[in-house]
Amino acid sequence: MKRLKGLIRTIPDFPRDGILFRDITTLLQDGGALKEVVEAFTHETPEDVSRVVGIESRGFIFGGALACQIGAGFVPVRKMGKLPCEKIRIEYGLEYGTDILEIHRDSIIPGEKVVIVDDLLATGGTARAACTLVEKAGGKVEKVLFLIELDELRGIEKLKGYDVFSLLHF
Amino acid sequence: MKRLKGLIRTIPDFPRDGILFRDITTLLQDGGALKEVVEAFTHETPEDVSRVVGIESRGFIFGGALACQIGAGFVPVRKMGKLPCEKIRIEYGLEYGTDILEIHRDSIIPGEKVVIVDDLLATGGTARAACTLVEKAGGKVEKVLFLIELDELRGIEKLKGYDVFSLLHF
Repeated sequence: MKRLKGLIRTIPDFPRDGILFRDITTLLQDGGALKEVVEAFTHETPEDVSRVVGIESRGFIFGGALACQIGAGFVPVRKMGKLPCEKIRIEYGLEYGTDILEIHRDSIIPGEKVVIVDDLLATGGTARAACTLVEKAGGKVEKVLFLIELDELRGIEKLKGYDVFSLLHF
Repeated sequence: MKRLKGLIRTIPDFPRDGILFRDITTLLQDGGALKEVVEAFTHETPEDVSRVVGIESRGFIFGGALACQIGAGFVPVRKMGKLPCEKIRIEYGLEYGTDILEIHRDSIIPGEKVVIVDDLLATGGTARAACTLVEKAGGKVEKVLFLIELDELRGIEKLKGYDVFSLLHF
């Protein structure tokens, strides 16, 4: 874990003043590190999970890899207007304003067990919205996986009742 | 291949009138099919490739999985303003107007062998821009991999001189 954490690059004042941005690209470009992350996620995924839901867009990187590793299907949760078929939509609050996420209505078989993957748990709003979308599509959220959790933002409180795993904590 | 092709859903008039949109989400959500695609990409990737470059955002799904499968690093090519560190930028022409893509300057070791992955080869502008970015960062483009090639748009002509592999043709 110490080596993985050391591969995260911290950028001050991005995307705006006062934010310490945790840049995961320096971890991603290390093949051994990427594999280690996906193996940890695989280990945390219950055996009967048949869909991996990735949140646009960094969640697609780990989600695609995890789905392939465990032989599950991959389902994208996307920003508004990107999915072409019948979808379920959720609007949720951000620090400033609101955002919208969508999932295809037919992307999950009702009752199916699902893990949700993203790179970062910050305030938890996006992940919580993704959980709600999966449930509206009929899925059961077995686990929510993050590469990084920013502990002081307490996003974990928005995910009460869900089984959450974060590989690295800042 | 016939089974994989049958899993692609065609949506008329998306994102606008007259476009036949090839929706890959119906393939992605089939775990066996996703694995088959990544195995085909693995087979097409030269052995000494050490970086997989994925184009935002559907290229992240296959790129992350392929990088993990072959033990290579993953490098994102992203839309403007998403990467936090020093980057190389390219502006390229679209059907209407222009678009901008970026790569981190330090994401590739000079001389390193790279494959580029995306879901779709249409007019080829985006893929060609990604090739140029990889070369400006010092990488050698060994192969460009697509799930789908839309043959009649002749994107392949924009990629002259590159080794291109498309798994499915429409």
